[in-house]
Amino acid sequence: MHSKLPHVGTTIFTVMSALAATHKAINLSQGFPDFDCHEHLKELVSAAMRAGHNQYAPMPGIMPLREAIAQKIQALYGRDIHPDTEITITPGGTYAIFTAIATCIRPGDEVIIFEPAYDSYVPNVLVNGGTPVLVPLTFPDYRINWELVRSKITPRTRMILLNTPHNPTGSILTAADLEELERLVAAHQLLVLSDEVYEHLVFDGEPHLSLLRYPALFRHSFVTFSFGKVFHNTGWKMGYCVAPAHLMQEYRKVHQYLCFSVNTPMQYGLAKFLETPEHYLSLAAFYQEKRDYFLELMAGTRFTPLPCKGSYFQVMDYSRISDESDKDFAIRITKAFGVASIPVSAFYQQGQDDHVVRCCFAKKRETLEQAAERLRKV
Amino acid sequence: MHSKLPHVGTTIFTVMSALAATHKAINLSQGFPDFDCHEHLKELVSAAMRAGHNQYAPMPGIMPLREAIAQKIQALYGRDIHPDTEITITPGGTYAIFTAIATCIRPGDEVIIFEPAYDSYVPNVLVNGGTPVLVPLTFPDYRINWELVRSKITPRTRMILLNTPHNPTGSILTAADLEELERLVAAHQLLVLSDEVYEHLVFDGEPHLSLLRYPALFRHSFVTFSFGKVFHNTGWKMGYCVAPAHLMQEYRKVHQYLCFSVNTPMQYGLAKFLETPEHYLSLAAFYQEKRDYFLELMAGTRFTPLPCKGSYFQVMDYSRISDESDKDFAIRITKAFGVASIPVSAFYQQGQDDHVVRCCFAKKRETLEQAAERLRKV
Ligand SMILES: CSCCC(=O)C(=O)O
Ligand SMILES: CSCCC(=O)C(=O)O
Repeated sequence: MHSKLPHVGTTIFTVMSALAATHKAINLSQGFPDFDCHEHLKELVSAAMRAGHNQYAPMPGIMPLREAIAQKIQALYGRDIHPDTEITITPGGTYAIFTAIATCIRPGDEVIIFEPAYDSYVPNVLVNGGTPVLVPLTFPDYRINWELVRSKITPRTRMILLNTPHNPTGSILTAADLEELERLVAAHQLLVLSDEVYEHLVFDGEPHLSLLRYPALFRHSFVTFSFGKVFHNTGWKMGYCVAPAHLMQEYRKVHQYLCFSVNTPMQYGLAKFLETPEHYLSLAAFYQEKRDYFLELMAGTRFTPLPCKGSYFQVMDYSRISDESDKDFAIRITKAFGVASIPVSAFYQQGQDDHVVRCCFAKKRETLEQAAERLRKV
Repeated sequence: MHSKLPHVGTTIFTVMSALAATHKAINLSQGFPDFDCHEHLKELVSAAMRAGHNQYAPMPGIMPLREAIAQKIQALYGRDIHPDTEITITPGGTYAIFTAIATCIRPGDEVIIFEPAYDSYVPNVLVNGGTPVLVPLTFPDYRINWELVRSKITPRTRMILLNTPHNPTGSILTAADLEELERLVAAHQLLVLSDEVYEHLVFDGEPHLSLLRYPALFRHSFVTFSFGKVFHNTGWKMGYCVAPAHLMQEYRKVHQYLCFSVNTPMQYGLAKFLETPEHYLSLAAFYQEKRDYFLELMAGTRFTPLPCKGSYFQVMDYSRISDESDKDFAIRITKAFGVASIPVSAFYQQGQDDHVVRCCFAKKRETLEQAAERLRKV
């Protein structure tokens, strides 16, 4: 059959995780923790199953979970979101993003995507017949060059896709960025899709500048979140989308026929878990400690870490070690030294190679220590 | 914003379930059981969570679940399916269907859909830019008129969408149907999407004629299944798709960027549960007993049940009672007599009204008895 995605192979995450398994390497490639989620959270889901919450949830999600999310948004971002019309629970953050694109993008529509980019964005636009317009972030600080963005706007530009904190680079948007964005959106009537799956993982006392804080922007935006990325249960595939009612109405039309509704007992468990704000308020410190420890360990190696302000990823420059391509380097280090990372060129359609790799530090202290011990030999 | 689905409102399932709740009616509308799934199955999922199976599953699903499915297919349909390349786990049957359509359908492609049709089919084709070509089943026996199908084939026909056992009507495909299909597919190089979410619910000793039994057909087919519909846990949103490797390869490209992977602990629980074939081999008798009991109860009413050979739905003709439209009738019966059903016209794009309603008999004996007591007064 004639492929809609002829250039798509296996994701780099699957490739590197498989290579790590084959070579019994420490896996700092794919973004997931090597420690478990909270025992109490599991127990809440088990209790929901035992209580008989095993049939269809309402299409947008169970109300207690939507209400708990609205309360969290109010507490963190000072914004009233209506749980009945502005929040929809999804089977994960990736699905939440796809559905926003499927809702809005038609053949010929252009979508601005910053590179390096999480690997689903471009295929999501292509499957829906749209045209990805790729804009590189600056190197090595991974900021948006707004002048360059403006030069890419055409009458077909329909959406701009943001990600803060940013995967793979750990950069975050600033207030100045959001002002630029607001002007651009107003001038060209763009839609915004803001992928904020790492919302609680912002370090050094900085606030997370969610689009939800900006009323004029939010009116044109879909904002997507993940439970798995923040509550250490990536395998549960639970997330949500927040959008103003007029956009959410269209989003739900696609969602209701795409998977109709989302895992009921997991929704009940998460709703109860969110009743304790400490569960998410503690996350920035928890992951900052891991980042700092990883940086401390890396100081004993010949890698040069780039700034990481959020997410659970650390980008490291290896140009003092080798001038191999980042793919060759990442594969060699996995095989020869037993530490798997992700070559950042994999996040660029044209494979731009700045000789940097991404390491996931959502790992136990001993895992990070073992990885460092091995990387010191490189 | 400009809607991709301007004619879509809230699904009839949500509307009727809400009406049932408001009027404290017995809800025979939306298709889900009012009894719980097996305690052991819940315990298996809880055990998987406790054992730490809480991070990403592999993109196509965990191997033990894919192997268990392949064994079941071998046992039931005598066919060797390769778990590594021909099975993908999905968040529910509806998602499995959407993804097959998103994989194959481009703007301008025509998809043959039989009416009455499960309500996601037409929007799924539209969201992907395709053109649904609607072919009515015969009334009142809900069979395919192959002469009519052939008259609808054009050079743009790309896919034919089947559903056996059939929702909402309870009809099943016959061997003669599958021979006709095989000829048609060969003559016009069509793809087939066969929605078999009620696979185990075929009554009166008839076999389930899965497309998996037909090698020449299967080469061109996606076949979709649901755990929720058969294991009484519709709220878990777990299902899968089976397709030959060359089609599955394209399907997985869409899936890997749509939701990447599916709930890990639920996959482990289901894999273990499938090790006991009795769990699915018992289902036909279990639901046949419910159908027969429901028919016995209905004999005391003025409704005329149509033949139900599979699924957990019973269609009933109410023309001896009233000549109202089926929507008016279903709403009135919900409000005045306290039993909610689905007007079958909701499964037709043009609202064809044969004065029949659909009742779900996946209910406890006492629920069916109470419903019958109320319906006797109609
Ligand atoms: C969905 S698998 C990839 C996980 C992830 O977010 C990443 O590693 O970037
Ligand atoms: C996904 S909600 C509808 C459930 C169902 O399959 C039906 O009632 O037909």
